[in-house]
Amino acid sequence: MTKYNLMKKVHNLLTFGFDSQPRRFISWFIISLICLNVLAVILGSVDTIGRDYHDLLFGFEIFSVAVFSLEYILRVWSCTVEPKYSHPFTGRIRFAVSPLALTDLLAILPFYLPFLIHVDLRFLRTLRLLRLFRLGHLKRFNETSRMILNVLRERREALIISFAIILLLIIFTSSLMYFVENPAQPEVFKNIPDSMWWAVMTMTTVGYGDIYPIIALGKLLTSIISILGLATFALPTAILSAGLLEEFQNKKIHEHICPTCGQEIPKT
Amino acid sequence: MTKYNLMKKVHNLLTFGFDSQPRRFISWFIISLICLNVLAVILGSVDTIGRDYHDLLFGFEIFSVAVFSLEYILRVWSCTVEPKYSHPFTGRIRFAVSPLALTDLLAILPFYLPFLIHVDLRFLRTLRLLRLFRLGHLKRFNETSRMILNVLRERREALIISFAIILLLIIFTSSLMYFVENPAQPEVFKNIPDSMWWAVMTMTTVGYGDIYPIIALGKLLTSIISILGLATFALPTAILSAGLLEEFQNKKIHEHICPTCGQEIPKT
Amino acid sequence: MTKYNLMKKVHNLLTFGFDSQPRRFISWFIISLICLNVLAVILGSVDTIGRDYHDLLFGFEIFSVAVFSLEYILRVWSCTVEPKYSHPFTGRIRFAVSPLALTDLLAILPFYLPFLIHVDLRFLRTLRLLRLFRLGHLKRFNETSRMILNVLRERREALIISFAIILLLIIFTSSLMYFVENPAQPEVFKNIPDSMWWAVMTMTTVGYGDIYPIIALGKLLTSIISILGLATFALPTAILSAGLLEEFQNKKIHEHICPTCGQEIPKT
Amino acid sequence: MTKYNLMKKVHNLLTFGFDSQPRRFISWFIISLICLNVLAVILGSVDTIGRDYHDLLFGFEIFSVAVFSLEYILRVWSCTVEPKYSHPFTGRIRFAVSPLALTDLLAILPFYLPFLIHVDLRFLRTLRLLRLFRLGHLKRFNETSRMILNVLRERREALIISFAIILLLIIFTSSLMYFVENPAQPEVFKNIPDSMWWAVMTMTTVGYGDIYPIIALGKLLTSIISILGLATFALPTAILSAGLLEEFQNKKIHEHICPTCGQEIPKT
Repeated sequence: MTKYNLMKKVHNLLTFGFDSQPRRFISWFIISLICLNVLAVILGSVDTIGRDYHDLLFGFEIFSVAVFSLEYILRVWSCTVEPKYSHPFTGRIRFAVSPLALTDLLAILPFYLPFLIHVDLRFLRTLRLLRLFRLGHLKRFNETSRMILNVLRERREALIISFAIILLLIIFTSSLMYFVENPAQPEVFKNIPDSMWWAVMTMTTVGYGDIYPIIALGKLLTSIISILGLATFALPTAILSAGLLEEFQNKKIHEHICPTCGQEIPKT
Repeated sequence: MTKYNLMKKVHNLLTFGFDSQPRRFISWFIISLICLNVLAVILGSVDTIGRDYHDLLFGFEIFSVAVFSLEYILRVWSCTVEPKYSHPFTGRIRFAVSPLALTDLLAILPFYLPFLIHVDLRFLRTLRLLRLFRLGHLKRFNETSRMILNVLRERREALIISFAIILLLIIFTSSLMYFVENPAQPEVFKNIPDSMWWAVMTMTTVGYGDIYPIIALGKLLTSIISILGLATFALPTAILSAGLLEEFQNKKIHEHICPTCGQEIPKT
Repeated sequence: MTKYNLMKKVHNLLTFGFDSQPRRFISWFIISLICLNVLAVILGSVDTIGRDYHDLLFGFEIFSVAVFSLEYILRVWSCTVEPKYSHPFTGRIRFAVSPLALTDLLAILPFYLPFLIHVDLRFLRTLRLLRLFRLGHLKRFNETSRMILNVLRERREALIISFAIILLLIIFTSSLMYFVENPAQPEVFKNIPDSMWWAVMTMTTVGYGDIYPIIALGKLLTSIISILGLATFALPTAILSAGLLEEFQNKKIHEHICPTCGQEIPKT
Repeated sequence: MTKYNLMKKVHNLLTFGFDSQPRRFISWFIISLICLNVLAVILGSVDTIGRDYHDLLFGFEIFSVAVFSLEYILRVWSCTVEPKYSHPFTGRIRFAVSPLALTDLLAILPFYLPFLIHVDLRFLRTLRLLRLFRLGHLKRFNETSRMILNVLRERREALIISFAIILLLIIFTSSLMYFVENPAQPEVFKNIPDSMWWAVMTMTTVGYGDIYPIIALGKLLTSIISILGLATFALPTAILSAGLLEEFQNKKIHEHICPTCGQEIPKT
């Protein structure tokens, strides 16, 4: 029983919350450590900083990996207090393969791995930021993030269809442009994948300028494609926008306020 | 009678559907073949792959053209079971010139044609993808795609007007900019069609950087044009967005749920 | 009386309309002539075409200027049949200075002027396209264009405020960036007008690539500015979008259909 | 009492208003001086103008600094007539540290400072434009600007969340692209901050073309990122758009007009 209570206490302390002195302290400590860590990864990539502050950054990395490793172990150990991970062995395994626990592991691993495989995977450390999403469970942001997720879920099919249309448009236009521009610029529109790169960069209107048509027909087609593309790429935005508005209205209905006249709706 | 039943069976098997074992198998087989084919066209355009796997890609192409040709012939043969194509001869001709049957033919032809005309029309093979739109007839995606098409149909006039405004804006600004920039950059703003290319690339905000104003007046006009253009090109997006929202609300009404209060609407 | 009837007949024939044989013929003739003219201006600007077809284009220009001049004179002559231009002299003057009549004049003048002033104002000929807007008075497009104009009028103040915010943002960021980047790139960020050119091209996301920050602080500021700018430039779009949706709903109300439940609204 | 009345009169005269002859005169004088000043800063930065009209611009600067300094002193002196700044000493201090008074001071200071510190802070003079926001308090624009601010306030959390998602996406994609592209272009994707610059410029679709991926994997990732980025960056726009529409509807409700049927709502 003591062990169970200890686990419960550890589990409770490691969940973000600001209702008691120790939870508040641990939450802020973990949040700060995550942010500082990502800052260290970003700054450490700069030549001069990475060289001059090498020892400081490395020391800080050892310290934070130690903290995150300890936290990870404690989390896996104490997860059994949650009903859905209650089994001492399979419960912990199932917790360990849950998306958030896996990203936690991925964020620590790059530190231990270099001794084994010689690839620089330090960029995986930024995955630690994903943990901040747990803040979304706080009451304050909960409702808004739930609304955004709701829109994504309810408009799932419309979004899939619009992405399918976008994909088809990319494949058609890129094979067409490859056919039109390849003879004129064999080194730029080298093959269809390169042409697809052009299609995406044009229809998203990024337009780096590393690849563009030079012959008249190509320019005419690009003009038509870019206007069509603008409308097509606007489809997901329009769907999200319409969905969000509906969600805002539903929220009012949920609060028994009529979105039309602003007066209270009698409960039925 | 036997022949009619066979035609009916063939016709049924060649329509996408997942309700029986053979239809499911044929549907998945055709879908996979279409996707693999497009992938083969894309990868085959890459120098090294096109050379190294030439025989494999060519073999796969022969196989799929055989399948698609057989499918096309069977489709034309069995189309008479549909009431609207019931006449043995004119019905089949009318089926053959329907948009989807034409794209099917266009997708096979490039294989037979090179022996006749020596133009590389292999990019037409990507037209096969259009067939995937038939999946849209499946119940699951039917409603959403119908809603998107509805918006396009109902807002037809508003969309035409906004595209007309866009076209006028392009013609005006490009002839104006030709007048302003041509003396300074005779090789860049060479003529009004080139200037129109600039206008479209600026107002869609693609901005490759191959053509841009360099004199003060041209820059001032471009600034005004690009802000105006942003608002004008946003018009179709706004129309689509507003139309989709209405469609979402209409759907609820259709389901006898009031979009205002979320309660059931009494049938009248 | 005969003269008045003739004027009335001429005035009626020169107004776009498709209700009688002669009006239909004249309308289509004028529309075609306008479109062909603009096409001639565009194509005539291309070196090779302008040279090879010089005589044809010049002949066509003389013919159309003759037609448009005649039409202009007839219009001014017959305008007195309209009540608001009824006075024989001042009415005609007031008609001649109305926006559409002025653009008509501007579209013809460049042909007569070269003999006087030696500036190439042929681009003004594209102004003839503005006449096509008169088609907007036709019943079919009337409603939709009225709705778009309504949104612009009703949301006038919101649009003015958002353009004022955009202008302020441009002035601030450009003077700030001039201060930051001028020491590093004195030839690129030469002065504040150049910096404003950068600001507009960045915030509209055109990004030609002829002018961009190279020092760290400038890049950081640009990142913040471009995200802020995206939201600010989205304001007019959002206003238009919201306004159009309202207009669509109002239209239904006007037709006595409740946009909420799709049923008829009892007249009060 | 005389002094208090004088302060009240001065305070009233220095607040933008157009209801009496002297207030109208002073308001227009100050507005013109602000606009001319900003124009002088912009034009003065242009080499030739700054040199040729040096004396005129300097004279105008001395004159306007004199006016703005006097106005600033009078404002601080007379602010005690407002109840919330009533205390002769602490009230004035609290007024002096209010945002608008601080920007007023910041706009004058650069003129006096050069004699002390040798940094060119003239760009701070554009801060004077911020004063024009006080025009927003005029009845005409008051309602619209209140509506825009309302949307920003009510959708605060949704906006914060979407900016947090944008920030996370930038950090992830930039560290990933640094990892992918750095080996191929060590001089372009030099470090993660440079990669972040790339990420922002790509996802806002500015795309200057000074930094872009060149290897296949980098291009594939960029394609996915730019489409995802487009949808993510559309989130704030969608939120604003949906919020504005709601605000327009609420306004109608406030005016006791039902947004659904356009009829008057009976007061309860």
